[in-house]
Amino acid sequence: MSTDGSTLPDGEPVDDAIEPDDLELDGAEEPGQEEPGPDDTPAAAARWRGLGRIVLAATPIGSSRDATENLKDLLAQADVVAAEDTRTLRQLLRRIGVHPSGAVVSYHEHNERERAAELVERAQAGATVAVVTDAGMPSVSDPGFRVAAAAQAAGVRVSALPGPSAVLTALAVSGLPSDRFCFEGFVARKGGERRRAFTELADERRTMVFFESPHRIAATLADMAEIFGADREVAVCRELTKPYEEVRRGGLAEVAAWAADGVRGEITVVLAGVSASARTVTAADVAPEVLESVAAGERLKDAASAVALRHGLPKRDVYEAALAAR
Amino acid sequence: MSTDGSTLPDGEPVDDAIEPDDLELDGAEEPGQEEPGPDDTPAAAARWRGLGRIVLAATPIGSSRDATENLKDLLAQADVVAAEDTRTLRQLLRRIGVHPSGAVVSYHEHNERERAAELVERAQAGATVAVVTDAGMPSVSDPGFRVAAAAQAAGVRVSALPGPSAVLTALAVSGLPSDRFCFEGFVARKGGERRRAFTELADERRTMVFFESPHRIAATLADMAEIFGADREVAVCRELTKPYEEVRRGGLAEVAAWAADGVRGEITVVLAGVSASARTVTAADVAPEVLESVAAGERLKDAASAVALRHGLPKRDVYEAALAAR
Repeated sequence: MSTDGSTLPDGEPVDDAIEPDDLELDGAEEPGQEEPGPDDTPAAAARWRGLGRIVLAATPIGSSRDATENLKDLLAQADVVAAEDTRTLRQLLRRIGVHPSGAVVSYHEHNERERAAELVERAQAGATVAVVTDAGMPSVSDPGFRVAAAAQAAGVRVSALPGPSAVLTALAVSGLPSDRFCFEGFVARKGGERRRAFTELADERRTMVFFESPHRIAATLADMAEIFGADREVAVCRELTKPYEEVRRGGLAEVAAWAADGVRGEITVVLAGVSASARTVTAADVAPEVLESVAAGERLKDAASAVALRHGLPKRDVYEAALAAR
Repeated sequence: MSTDGSTLPDGEPVDDAIEPDDLELDGAEEPGQEEPGPDDTPAAAARWRGLGRIVLAATPIGSSRDATENLKDLLAQADVVAAEDTRTLRQLLRRIGVHPSGAVVSYHEHNERERAAELVERAQAGATVAVVTDAGMPSVSDPGFRVAAAAQAAGVRVSALPGPSAVLTALAVSGLPSDRFCFEGFVARKGGERRRAFTELADERRTMVFFESPHRIAATLADMAEIFGADREVAVCRELTKPYEEVRRGGLAEVAAWAADGVRGEITVVLAGVSASARTVTAADVAPEVLESVAAGERLKDAASAVALRHGLPKRDVYEAALAAR
C-alpha cells in the first residue's frame, strides 16, 4: 500500500477526508523566509519523510528559540502535520521560519477519535505523521495519548521528539523536591469538586504539579491554603520562558494573598508534598514500627529503609532512631 | 559587588575555588568549529551574560539535534556553566558546535552542598550561572533542585530552559494515559526494598514512570509482574531518541519474558495505574456511596463527580449507575 494510494475504510481518499489547511505564508511579512535554512540540504530534507510512523513532537511554551532542530526538520518534512490548532501552528511556523511540505490537519479533543484512526492509517500506509499541540509535549494533558494508544494497538511505530514542557520547567524553577513528583493536570473548575480533589491529595508526599487558569488561581490557592495548610510551600509560575516570567514562592497563605490582587498569564502551580513542608511524623515516632519488623525476623537496616520510605523520612534518621529505641 | 571581585566567605576568590576545567576543543577533529554560528551576532552574544541568575537548562537525551537555540546561546555565553560531568558536557559542546566563553565547573551529587552555595553566590554577584546535567532536565532525579532551592532561599532568580526529558518522552510514546502521572525516579537497587516500594504503589491509579538500569530491568519487571499483576500494561522504552530506540509494550508478564533475554541501553519504564488495566471497582459498586452523599444533602451530579474521581471511574458512568440505583 503506498502513501498516495491509501484510502479510508469508507473508500474516501485520505487527502480529501483530512482536508489540508491552506498554509500559504505571507513572505512579505517575514523577509528572508524564502532563503533555505542550514538544514535544507537534500540529505536533511529526506530524513523525516515516509517513515511510516507517528511522531509526537514538543513545541515551545513561550520562547520560539526553544524549538529544536529536530522539530524544525520534522515540521518541514513530515508527510502530515496534525496540530491541536492549525492557526497556532501557523504562527509558530512563521516564528521559526519553517515551511511545511506535507499536509496540515487539525487534531484536537473534538475530533480525536476519528482523526486518530485516520492518522494511524496514514502512518500504516508509510507516511510520517507529526502530532503537535499548541504548546509543550503532546500527551501531557491533551489528546496526544489517544493517537499513541491507537498506533500501539495497530502495531504502528510511535516516537517522540522531546522538548519544552511547562510541567518540568515549573518543577525545575520551583526549587521543590523533584526526586518524585506527580502531575495532576488542570485543577477542577468547580469549587466543590476542586476541594474534594485537594482533600484526596492531603496525604500526598510527592511534589504536585497543576495547571490552572489565571481567572481561578486566587480561589484555588485559597482552597489549597485551607486544605493543605497555610504554611505548605508552593511555587506559582506564570508566563514561563516568556519575557514577563515570574515565580512566586512561599507559604500557601502568603502566595494566596498575593494572588488575590489578580494574576495574569499561563499558570503552573508546584505544591510541596506533605512530608517536605509539614512533617508531623518524626523518625522517633516510627522507630517502634521498625522494631516490630525486626522482632518479626527482618534485618534492622532493611526494616528501617522500608519504614523510612513509607513515611517519607530519611533512612539514616529512622535507622538511628530505631537503634536508640532498641 | 561585581562578578569579578566576588569572594567566597572564606576569602578565596571564586574563580580559584571553582577551578574551571580546561575546555580547549580540538579544532582539528571538528573542522569548521571556529566559524561563527548564526547566533554569534553581537546582540545574541550579550543576551545570556550578567543576568544575575541561575538557569537550569535541559540537554539532549540522545539526539544532539534536540538541543534548542536557547541552550546553545546559554552554553556559549553564560558566565559560569556548572555541569554534572564536565567531560560529558565537552562532548555535547563538540557535537553542537558551541564554545563556552565562561568558566566550566562540575556540580554533582558529591559536591552539591558546597557548590550550590558557590553558584548562588556567583549569581548574586551578577553572573549568569547555567546548570546542566548529563542528559535531560536538571532537577528531575538529580542535584539540580538543591541549587534552585538555595537560590530561592537567597532571593536569587532561577529560570529554566525547557527541553528534552526521558520522563515525558517515554510517557508520550507509551500510549498510556497521561492526564495524571507520577514520576518515581530510579527503582531501588535491592530486591526487598524494590518489592516494598512496588507494594506501596499497588493501589496507584496514576500512570507511573521509573528509571531503571539495563542490568536490573529483567528482575524489576519480574517483581512488577508479581506485585502489579501479569496483565498490567507496561511500556519499556530503551535508547529514546537514539538510532536504536525501541518501545516494548504489553502485559507485565509478556514484557518481563522478553527482558529476560537481556536488555541494553538507557531504560525508562512506564507502568499503567491500577484503574487503567485492572479495574476491580465498577460504577455500580460505588453507586451507594453517591446516594449516601445525596442523602446527606449533596447534589447528585456533584456527588457522582467526587466519587468517580475518588475511584478513577468515568463521571458519566458513576452518575448513571447512581441514577439507576436510586
